[in-house]
Amino acid sequence: MILNQLDLKSVIRAVPDFPKPGVMFRDITPLFQSPRALRFVADSFIQRYVEADFTHIGAMDARGFLIGSIIAYELNKPLVLFRKRGKLPADVLAQAYETEYGEALLEVHADSLCEGDSVLIFDDLIATGGTLLAAAQLVRRMGASVFEAAAIIDLPELGGSTKLNDAQIPTYSLTAFALDEA
Amino acid sequence: MILNQLDLKSVIRAVPDFPKPGVMFRDITPLFQSPRALRFVADSFIQRYVEADFTHIGAMDARGFLIGSIIAYELNKPLVLFRKRGKLPADVLAQAYETEYGEALLEVHADSLCEGDSVLIFDDLIATGGTLLAAAQLVRRMGASVFEAAAIIDLPELGGSTKLNDAQIPTYSLTAFALDEA
Repeated sequence: MILNQLDLKSVIRAVPDFPKPGVMFRDITPLFQSPRALRFVADSFIQRYVEADFTHIGAMDARGFLIGSIIAYELNKPLVLFRKRGKLPADVLAQAYETEYGEALLEVHADSLCEGDSVLIFDDLIATGGTLLAAAQLVRRMGASVFEAAAIIDLPELGGSTKLNDAQIPTYSLTAFALDEA
Repeated sequence: MILNQLDLKSVIRAVPDFPKPGVMFRDITPLFQSPRALRFVADSFIQRYVEADFTHIGAMDARGFLIGSIIAYELNKPLVLFRKRGKLPADVLAQAYETEYGEALLEVHADSLCEGDSVLIFDDLIATGGTLLAAAQLVRRMGASVFEAAAIIDLPELGGSTKLNDAQIPTYSLTAFALDEA
């Protein structure tokens, strides 16, 4: 029996040439406009992780906050914020990384994890994997380990999930797009 | 009978001189590190709004996403993202505003609200009220109305909640700090 069904791709909008020419942007804002779609997406992750034994959820600034916080709330796990440069006010660890569009710095509060912690890191999308790989490096620099890297969408042709797997980080996504998919 | 109690201020960290000298920053990351505190905060808003008749929740980039998405998930309301300049890929409406630290542009997808919609706008903190006032202007430009502006924290001395009330926008916050409060 199928309890619920949703064509997830129908609530992800393809926007060509954003943020620069030649890039097909996968826009998740329609997903959040649909309570049924938001339930489907959040509950898919909650179902997957309800008995998992990680200790923390790490959410990526800013779209990763949207579903990451719901999972943390539902599973009663501490939520650690991974943010772009200059957004976190206390002592931070910083990690440089390459994005699909240039270079950036990811930061996390230095007191947010301890040795032995196990972290589910979450973002909306895996493209080149730069953000999640930087988050994994920050997690490991604090002596903690990465349980899994999860996202709503994977763009496998950009190689991020492969790169994460090569770094001994399991990945999970609800759906995947080919780069030229309409 | 008091079913749950939490000293909310104990999970909000005061960080002096961030993001610039003389500013006492109210850091909510410890709140998200505590599942009990996150439950307390999110459930306080859910309890307040569970029978309210607004149609949409509008969440402010980026910290407003964290609790805004939980409320939207729990109350089964569509979530509209109000983002900083250049983050939303489709056609946007933009509104300039003054922040506590300078000038900025707030954007929302132009197709996200219709005439007659009623929106709960949400951010983590009300300081000068600039972001929420800009969001309210965007809501009204689409023919919709603002149900209430809600935040975890109000800094009443900065005048934001007064300015919002003057613009016929009711405000609600869980706690408030004096500027020099330790």
